[in-house]
Amino acid sequence: MTPDLANEALASQIAFLQEIDRLKGVLRATPICDNSRPENSAEHSWHLAMYAMVLVDQAGPDVRIDRVIRMLLLHDIVEIDAGDVPIHLVHDSEAQAAKERVAAERIFGLLPAEQGAEFRALWEEFEAAQTPDAVFAKSIDRVQPLLLNLANGGGSWIDYHVTMEQIDARVGTKVNRGAPALWRHVRARVAGYFAS
Amino acid sequence: MTPDLANEALASQIAFLQEIDRLKGVLRATPICDNSRPENSAEHSWHLAMYAMVLVDQAGPDVRIDRVIRMLLLHDIVEIDAGDVPIHLVHDSEAQAAKERVAAERIFGLLPAEQGAEFRALWEEFEAAQTPDAVFAKSIDRVQPLLLNLANGGGSWIDYHVTMEQIDARVGTKVNRGAPALWRHVRARVAGYFAS
Repeated sequence: MTPDLANEALASQIAFLQEIDRLKGVLRATPICDNSRPENSAEHSWHLAMYAMVLVDQAGPDVRIDRVIRMLLLHDIVEIDAGDVPIHLVHDSEAQAAKERVAAERIFGLLPAEQGAEFRALWEEFEAAQTPDAVFAKSIDRVQPLLLNLANGGGSWIDYHVTMEQIDARVGTKVNRGAPALWRHVRARVAGYFAS
Repeated sequence: MTPDLANEALASQIAFLQEIDRLKGVLRATPICDNSRPENSAEHSWHLAMYAMVLVDQAGPDVRIDRVIRMLLLHDIVEIDAGDVPIHLVHDSEAQAAKERVAAERIFGLLPAEQGAEFRALWEEFEAAQTPDAVFAKSIDRVQPLLLNLANGGGSWIDYHVTMEQIDARVGTKVNRGAPALWRHVRARVAGYFAS
C-alpha cells in the first residue's frame, strides 16, 4: 500500500470510529442495575463482551470465544440508524430487519472495503443465528437483560407487563439453545421474581 | 466439577457480572463526540475494543489482537472502587495505584479463583505496559480521547487548559510507542486544532 492509500484507509477507519460513538446515545428498554437510567447500546455491548469472557465455560466445544466477543462488540452498531426495538414490544420485524440492512450498508461502508465486508459478514452471521458462535452470542444477548431486571427491581418487565410464559417463549428458548446450563440457573432466579 | 460446585462457580460469575454494571456509572473527563455528556468507563471500554478491532493493522507483528481486546474490555474495572483520574489532572499516582490494587483484589476476587487470577494478570499486564499487547492497548487507550475531543470541540482540553506540548508529553509518547503511524496521523489533526 502506498503512503497515500494507507493514510486514506486510516482516515476511513477513524471516520467509522467517530461515527459509532453515536451508539452511546441509543437507549434500550432495560434500566442499568441501580435503576437510575436506561442502558445504552454501547455499554450494553461492553457488558455482553464481558459476559462472553466470563461465561466461556457455558459455551459448547465448537464455539470460538474470541469471534463471539467480536460479534457482540459490533452486533448493535446498526441501531445507530435503525434504533433499538425492545424484545417485548410488538413490532414489524421484517421492516426492522430491512432498516438494519440499510444501516449496515451505510455504517460498515465507512470502512475500507475489505474490512467493512468482514465486519458486515460477522454481523450477518450473528443475525442468522445458525453457527455455534452466533447461537452462543445470541444466548448472551438475551440473558443479560434478565439479570439487569433482577437487579433493578423488574425494569422492562414491569413497563411491558411481561409474564414468565412470555420470557420462556421469547427469551428462554434462545438462551437455552446456546447455553442450557446457564438458562437452568437464570430461569430459577427469574421464576423466583415472578412467583413473589 | 460436581453440579453443586458448578452452580457455585456460575453464581460467583453472575455476581461479578452484576457488580461490574457499576462501571456504567463511572464518569470520565472527556465528553462523548456530540458533547452532550461525559463518557462513562463502560462505553469507553467498548469503544476501545472497537478501536483495537478496526486498527489492528497499526499493531506490530507480535501483538495478539484478541488478547488486546480482552485487556481493553477489563482495564477500567478497578475504577468502580478507585474512580477515574483524568490524565491532565495533577494527582498522586502512587496513591491511585494503591487504590486500584485494592479494587482489583476485591472485584476480580468475586470470580472463581482461577478465572479471577487470570483476569487480574491481564489487568496487571496492561498496567505494566511492557508486553507488545499491553503497549498497543495503552496506545489505543490514549488515542481515543483525542479523537473524542476533536469531535466535541475541545472537551477536556478546555477544562484542563491543556497545551499541545502537554499532549505530546503525556499522550503522544504512549500512542507513538505502540502505534507510530497512528500517532503521526492523529497528531497532525490535534496540532491543527491547537493551531486554530
